[in-house]
Amino acid sequence: EILAAVEALLAPGAGPLAGRHAIVTSGPTHEAIDPVRYIANRSSGRQGHAIAAALAALGARVTLVSGPVALPDPPGVAVRRVESAREMLAACEAALPADVAVCAAAVADWRVAAAAGQKLKKVPGQAPPPLALALNPDILATLSAHPRRPRLVVGFAAETEEVVANAIAKRARKGCDWIVANDVSGDVMGGRENAVHLVTAQGVEHWPRLPKEEVARRLAERIAAALA
Amino acid sequence: EILAAVEALLAPGAGPLAGRHAIVTSGPTHEAIDPVRYIANRSSGRQGHAIAAALAALGARVTLVSGPVALPDPPGVAVRRVESAREMLAACEAALPADVAVCAAAVADWRVAAAAGQKLKKVPGQAPPPLALALNPDILATLSAHPRRPRLVVGFAAETEEVVANAIAKRARKGCDWIVANDVSGDVMGGRENAVHLVTAQGVEHWPRLPKEEVARRLAERIAAALA
Repeated sequence: EILAAVEALLAPGAGPLAGRHAIVTSGPTHEAIDPVRYIANRSSGRQGHAIAAALAALGARVTLVSGPVALPDPPGVAVRRVESAREMLAACEAALPADVAVCAAAVADWRVAAAAGQKLKKVPGQAPPPLALALNPDILATLSAHPRRPRLVVGFAAETEEVVANAIAKRARKGCDWIVANDVSGDVMGGRENAVHLVTAQGVEHWPRLPKEEVARRLAERIAAALA
Repeated sequence: EILAAVEALLAPGAGPLAGRHAIVTSGPTHEAIDPVRYIANRSSGRQGHAIAAALAALGARVTLVSGPVALPDPPGVAVRRVESAREMLAACEAALPADVAVCAAAVADWRVAAAAGQKLKKVPGQAPPPLALALNPDILATLSAHPRRPRLVVGFAAETEEVVANAIAKRARKGCDWIVANDVSGDVMGGRENAVHLVTAQGVEHWPRLPKEEVARRLAERIAAALA
């Protein structure tokens, strides 16, 4: 896909997504407990970054809103780096309008209710106080109900059980168009391959286990067809 | 230091630490909340990995016990990969006996009291339950009081206030020989440089801001002198 991205760079007006703007979220978010501790979701960002690259390869202008990852920036993509879910939402809203939003980040559902400004001290022999949590904003639901809603909003669902049933319910609950669902009870997070189910208004497609780059390429082509 | 490490590999019997075994911990630990969420400390592992490389370059046999990091394995070092603090302690104890232990990892003080086997479900509109925490084992204190205690035990202290005073207190409390203290209120974690204070029984040395590799080289030389 590097070659394709280079081609897209060389011919920015070309490709089925030329003239389209895509927002892609990727990676985890980090929610501070104090200056040294945080809560996070497991996510390498590989799938989201691959989707950003695949959309750019089809000619889209891509804004990639990425949590902390150890990946290089995909070529030809504008990267906005964020830490927390609230920063990620703000960066997505700042990037609107867009034709499509793909929310592939593993956003932390919860943040710490009151992050400490100084490092919390361990008191020897004493159990730590429980950590009060607060609900984070729901980026997928917010973009799906946004006054400047992208025409196509795609969410991801990482499930450990009842993968497809949970994904169908999630699609309805969030108000998005498609859900890409995967079973993370194995070794998907951080791995190189992914077996996903694409849940749309038309039903459920089961895709074979594929390299994440190939999942991204197929999804980008489906997005191009939907926006055509 | 790559050249030095290669030289150490080519001449394993050479160097002031030849015949010595060093255990180095590095990186963060990840404490599972459920299969997709975890608590962690901010740590790139750069300082710990550099110390492992520097000790190997002086001829030591090095066991590097590393939490999840995005760094290559230092050449000539045996790497044990772990996730949690309990796994890190077990790997350190399994690596004993050793002449020196350098505990550079940013070990999570607390873990989640009862990690969930399935992904916790967010209940829309409902505040999440507080997260009950439990104290993790203290790897530095455990090694310092171990029946097979390394002759030299070195800890790290990441502080955001009262850096030296907290480090002096930490040295006494943990029972270790030296504390390498740094102020992490700036941008140390993940950064390339470090300004540290070396706290020993003899007093406190203030080292200038240096690349982490140079901090590692100086510390390795001090260790070699102490074990000579």
